[in-house]
Amino acid sequence: MLVVRLIEYDEFTFTDIIIKKFDTILQDNKSKVVWIDVLGLFRTDIIEEIGAKLGIHPLILEDVVNTSYQPKITFYENMIFLVLKFLSYDESVKEIKSEHISFVLSKNFLVTFQEIEDDTFHYVYERIVRENSRIRKRTVDYLFYALINLVIENYAKVLYQIGSEIEELESKVLTTNDKENLKHILKLKNDIVFLRKTLRPLREILFQLGDVESDFFQEANKIYLRDLRDHGNQVLILLDELNESVTVIYEVYMSVINNKMNEVMKILTIVATIFIPLTFIVGLYGMNFKYMPELELHWAYPAVLIIMASIGLSMVLYFKRKNWF
Amino acid sequence: MLVVRLIEYDEFTFTDIIIKKFDTILQDNKSKVVWIDVLGLFRTDIIEEIGAKLGIHPLILEDVVNTSYQPKITFYENMIFLVLKFLSYDESVKEIKSEHISFVLSKNFLVTFQEIEDDTFHYVYERIVRENSRIRKRTVDYLFYALINLVIENYAKVLYQIGSEIEELESKVLTTNDKENLKHILKLKNDIVFLRKTLRPLREILFQLGDVESDFFQEANKIYLRDLRDHGNQVLILLDELNESVTVIYEVYMSVINNKMNEVMKILTIVATIFIPLTFIVGLYGMNFKYMPELELHWAYPAVLIIMASIGLSMVLYFKRKNWF
Amino acid sequence: MLVVRLIEYDEFTFTDIIIKKFDTILQDNKSKVVWIDVLGLFRTDIIEEIGAKLGIHPLILEDVVNTSYQPKITFYENMIFLVLKFLSYDESVKEIKSEHISFVLSKNFLVTFQEIEDDTFHYVYERIVRENSRIRKRTVDYLFYALINLVIENYAKVLYQIGSEIEELESKVLTTNDKENLKHILKLKNDIVFLRKTLRPLREILFQLGDVESDFFQEANKIYLRDLRDHGNQVLILLDELNESVTVIYEVYMSVINNKMNEVMKILTIVATIFIPLTFIVGLYGMNFKYMPELELHWAYPAVLIIMASIGLSMVLYFKRKNWF
Amino acid sequence: MLVVRLIEYDEFTFTDIIIKKFDTILQDNKSKVVWIDVLGLFRTDIIEEIGAKLGIHPLILEDVVNTSYQPKITFYENMIFLVLKFLSYDESVKEIKSEHISFVLSKNFLVTFQEIEDDTFHYVYERIVRENSRIRKRTVDYLFYALINLVIENYAKVLYQIGSEIEELESKVLTTNDKENLKHILKLKNDIVFLRKTLRPLREILFQLGDVESDFFQEANKIYLRDLRDHGNQVLILLDELNESVTVIYEVYMSVINNKMNEVMKILTIVATIFIPLTFIVGLYGMNFKYMPELELHWAYPAVLIIMASIGLSMVLYFKRKNWF
Amino acid sequence: MLVVRLIEYDEFTFTDIIIKKFDTILQDNKSKVVWIDVLGLFRTDIIEEIGAKLGIHPLILEDVVNTSYQPKITFYENMIFLVLKFLSYDESVKEIKSEHISFVLSKNFLVTFQEIEDDTFHYVYERIVRENSRIRKRTVDYLFYALINLVIENYAKVLYQIGSEIEELESKVLTTNDKENLKHILKLKNDIVFLRKTLRPLREILFQLGDVESDFFQEANKIYLRDLRDHGNQVLILLDELNESVTVIYEVYMSVINNKMNEVMKILTIVATIFIPLTFIVGLYGMNFKYMPELELHWAYPAVLIIMASIGLSMVLYFKRKNWF
Repeated sequence: MLVVRLIEYDEFTFTDIIIKKFDTILQDNKSKVVWIDVLGLFRTDIIEEIGAKLGIHPLILEDVVNTSYQPKITFYENMIFLVLKFLSYDESVKEIKSEHISFVLSKNFLVTFQEIEDDTFHYVYERIVRENSRIRKRTVDYLFYALINLVIENYAKVLYQIGSEIEELESKVLTTNDKENLKHILKLKNDIVFLRKTLRPLREILFQLGDVESDFFQEANKIYLRDLRDHGNQVLILLDELNESVTVIYEVYMSVINNKMNEVMKILTIVATIFIPLTFIVGLYGMNFKYMPELELHWAYPAVLIIMASIGLSMVLYFKRKNWF
Repeated sequence: MLVVRLIEYDEFTFTDIIIKKFDTILQDNKSKVVWIDVLGLFRTDIIEEIGAKLGIHPLILEDVVNTSYQPKITFYENMIFLVLKFLSYDESVKEIKSEHISFVLSKNFLVTFQEIEDDTFHYVYERIVRENSRIRKRTVDYLFYALINLVIENYAKVLYQIGSEIEELESKVLTTNDKENLKHILKLKNDIVFLRKTLRPLREILFQLGDVESDFFQEANKIYLRDLRDHGNQVLILLDELNESVTVIYEVYMSVINNKMNEVMKILTIVATIFIPLTFIVGLYGMNFKYMPELELHWAYPAVLIIMASIGLSMVLYFKRKNWF
Repeated sequence: MLVVRLIEYDEFTFTDIIIKKFDTILQDNKSKVVWIDVLGLFRTDIIEEIGAKLGIHPLILEDVVNTSYQPKITFYENMIFLVLKFLSYDESVKEIKSEHISFVLSKNFLVTFQEIEDDTFHYVYERIVRENSRIRKRTVDYLFYALINLVIENYAKVLYQIGSEIEELESKVLTTNDKENLKHILKLKNDIVFLRKTLRPLREILFQLGDVESDFFQEANKIYLRDLRDHGNQVLILLDELNESVTVIYEVYMSVINNKMNEVMKILTIVATIFIPLTFIVGLYGMNFKYMPELELHWAYPAVLIIMASIGLSMVLYFKRKNWF
Repeated sequence: MLVVRLIEYDEFTFTDIIIKKFDTILQDNKSKVVWIDVLGLFRTDIIEEIGAKLGIHPLILEDVVNTSYQPKITFYENMIFLVLKFLSYDESVKEIKSEHISFVLSKNFLVTFQEIEDDTFHYVYERIVRENSRIRKRTVDYLFYALINLVIENYAKVLYQIGSEIEELESKVLTTNDKENLKHILKLKNDIVFLRKTLRPLREILFQLGDVESDFFQEANKIYLRDLRDHGNQVLILLDELNESVTVIYEVYMSVINNKMNEVMKILTIVATIFIPLTFIVGLYGMNFKYMPELELHWAYPAVLIIMASIGLSMVLYFKRKNWF
Repeated sequence: MLVVRLIEYDEFTFTDIIIKKFDTILQDNKSKVVWIDVLGLFRTDIIEEIGAKLGIHPLILEDVVNTSYQPKITFYENMIFLVLKFLSYDESVKEIKSEHISFVLSKNFLVTFQEIEDDTFHYVYERIVRENSRIRKRTVDYLFYALINLVIENYAKVLYQIGSEIEELESKVLTTNDKENLKHILKLKNDIVFLRKTLRPLREILFQLGDVESDFFQEANKIYLRDLRDHGNQVLILLDELNESVTVIYEVYMSVINNKMNEVMKILTIVATIFIPLTFIVGLYGMNFKYMPELELHWAYPAVLIIMASIGLSMVLYFKRKNWF
């Protein structure tokens, strides 16, 4: 079920209602911060109705519901439209989950569209509920900042979790020859490809946001936009590092496989090289020729034994000198 | 056969005729949208004739008919010339098909040149036919936008199809050792090389289009140009992701081959290392020396069997301890 | 022998003479296009003499005769100096040939210096000879454009030929294990390295040429400079594609070698793993111990044969189940 | 324990006290350089108190104590905030150590926050103590420069140490086949990844610092900012070189492993190829058929010996001709 | 020993003296070109004395004597400071030698600092000595140009020598399997890493030099700065090409090793696959069972021989059909 919540607050008052009819969605209450939080995207008709009421361009609404869309920002004359992905990391299955989130910021209100009904913005919501929190004293653009900041902080969290997964794998790759390692590397590489696709637009988005010359943002709040940009850069630096680390692990994995193969071949070669010639010798004296004078000699058998022992020994010494074992 | 269609429409009227003589091609009917759709490129003489009538520079016409040309945009004083490739993906043979498409936008008309007679723009055409569609209420620049948008949406479609092909292959590469896998990777790599060649100019083209300071575009329609740019970026991000994914698959493929080889060598080494020394021992007592005292002993045969069994067993334990099987 | 041709033409007249004395090289005939075409570079003294007569800076002349120089463009107050390489592809030996070509464009004349006496500009020359060709009606800057265009079209031709060489090799690499393949890949890689060195400066050169704010070019001809820039970009996109294709081929080549090795090792392992244990068994009953009770048994020989057959068979089944053959 | 030192100096006086109460932290003593050096970051309350007293924005203080933060610079109206990492290299364990360091430069004072209580800035401190050192005659912005310079010089030192570690490893990789080599390469790769993450923001930071159009810096001291930028570039060039060197080592390592494998396989192949056919021959004459006429011949045994010797010899010659040993 | 030479010249006069006392180093002789050439850097005190006399900033002098410093340029109000590396290639040991060289250009004089006493600038010096050379007629900025040009020409020379070394190696890698090849590739890779570190700053340096808006350079000489920039670009294009060539060689080397291994494995597999089954057969009839009816048959021995021959032959045909030899 699609839920539309209307949250209104200022320093002293706070209301949070679930609305069904959208006629009264904006009561031109300029003194309060108005946040319309839409949870669920599957009822396109309702979203179109809300959009029409709030004067949101149909092109925006198309991008709101199209969850295959990548992060982007577009500036309109009286609105800022921002698409982000909310990422979380499910430790139990080691999987990154992505939720499509859109923001429409106008001078009077902020609308957020969340793909899933779980309230992703819970943490900011709680700060609003608390009576004398900073957020209650500020305008709607600060709310906008706080929500984006929450999203970016979750990126950092996900990256740190992937990072510790990588570190764990790194020591495994060197010690065990588990076939799972390759699958794990593949999974991490795909994670990184996904994260790069999702986070790469961030730099541009935050740069544009920090640069905007409009009156959407109070002068005193512009410092927070710069802060967002810094946070975004930190996330991207971290991502670059993860990417390089996975590449290193892959190379190490390949080297370890090659080393193992080398090892295997050495064992085979040592054993075969020692015993194949000796087997030839014993085969030689197993021949049934009538006239083989050696066979009659008393000391022949011990002599052959000694010769073979010295051949074997010299082989062993040869491999030892070659540092093969 | 080359076909020239002349489509004229406004909010209330719509005509679509196939024209043979080009004298009357433009009747200076400024109130209607005029779209001249040329299907087929092989009759250079006719194209030159049309070009002359419409005042299109010969250099443009050269690029219209040269299908080896890559996408590009050129701005002339009174015209915009755009070359794109229309891509489609034939699921049955898993092949990307490319069609050379050119647009000439002037203030009064739009000319499109299609390489193949099949009407690629079918979907937009149907929207024009419908009486109260948005497109009927707009000017020629909106038609231009709608057609380009169609082309870009097809890019996205092709990329998604290639994407699912890649995902399919990814699971195959890990489980089966089919020789087809290499051919498939090669095919995908070539697809990506082709797509990069074809789509890379897109960013520049759409950037220039969105930036143009001219009166080709109605102010109200400029929002659509920005939308095109966003769509183009999405396509290019997707393409980057596909490229990275194919690289990952290739690396996995190489690792799997290496792992297989390792496996094979291990089996060979285990078998050879256990039996070659034992074969030496049995060969030893197969020698025909007259004086081999052991041969006469009653308990010699069982003793040798026991010795060999313990050698074999200790080898097996050694390999087990090394985690070889 | 160094040849200096003086070609003068306008819409109605055309003269082409070989000059020996350079006093009269410029007769200040402003109404005609003057093209001085120098074939051969080895007579530095003559080139210096011509340069002095035409007022060309000694630094330019140094670059004209230094054939190891890479393409570049330099703008002087009253001259444009352009160095390009004319490329051609000798199908018979599959080799790229490069000729050092310099252009000096002043407002009144164009001087071209060609490394080889063969007239590379033959095709443009023929157009000039034809009486009512477009080139005859235009000024010297159009001649300049036409010659550069010729050079760039030859780049495209060479790239297409290399491209078809690559495609040919691609199918070969997958099917035959010819040792020639590696040499061919190496040769193509070197070709690409050479082409990148030679063509990379093109983007910058054509960009600068199209951007020049001077009166060297007639306003009506500037459209041709933009056309050059487009052509240059096309060539560079093509080159990128070739480069990527060769990389793909190399990777495929490496995979094929690895696959082959895998194959070889499998055959060895199958044969050795089946027969080495069996050889041990037959060796066992070849021992000459006096007391080996089995040897006396009537059914021992067929029993051993059956045991060995079942060992061999189970091995074969094992490898079959592993999909080894 | 968190320590707060207040250092004040001018050309003639110098005081250094540890302060406990922060009321009197700034006595508006404009003629002296004021440096507040905070050692240790774990008492967030104290840091907040200091920040409040000095008018430092809470967003800055968050970044001061968050040691996972990467280097960055932010310009405020009346302050410059800079985060750097102080690197040192522990020779004994061959490990890079990183300390989180923040600078807040205002027009009247400089505050530094160090993660560890060890005084990292010892070397600059000593220069201040010396009575007629250059630093004593200069303003607070020169102190700021001197401290950053110290940090960057330590980067160079660490890079040189990593560089000599790499050179050492390079010769090892070619000569010994120590398994430690791979671990060492992995460790160096991780070092480089870490260094790139830490130092990459440097270029941007120093560029912005050198470009700042403010009155934080005395005109005469701006030359030092440019000097910092040069030093920073040197460090980054060095880092690029190290990165390339490690890549080269890794490739050499892989080649060496491949070469070793080749060697091993050659030995196995030579021995097996010579003796397996010979063993077949001796096995042949070990058969117990009743009717094997050769067995009765007087010269058969020496003949077989000669045949086998010549087979073995020709094999040896074959491998010699192939340059296998 | 550190030597300081004072060279003064104009079109008609020339003096070259070695000076010991630096009081009279500048006699404000504006009509002549003054070049102070300092050979050797180890006497920091003398260099500081010279610097003080000429008004050179201490920061510059630090960089002059610090030979680990990379190339850079810094513009001061009344001076240009340039650091370059003079490269030469010692053919006998195939080694690149690098010398640290600094230039300080003021409006009245040029100071050069050379790391080694050998006069690197010999070639320019000789041109100055010659009475009616161009350099004698020009100002100090032309001398500056001439010296830098000499340095860059030497870069080109070194790169050509490395280039021919690479070409030589390329043919070796394909034909011989010399272990030296890997060492040689490693050496070349390190050379390239070193050259990239040293030459990469060149582009920026020459760009800034050509762009400078100062009165250091006579208008008529600015053409030479542009010429330097062109030369620098040529050198960097060449370096890129060398880098790509070495990468190609490395890949070919790896392919050759892999091919060799394949070859080796094939020989082993052919021999083992043919003879191991045959050895089993002969072992079979070497068993000592009492009841083996075949042994008694007259035609058994030749029958077994024929069977074995046909097994061997069919194996050989199998491998032939697989194109293994």
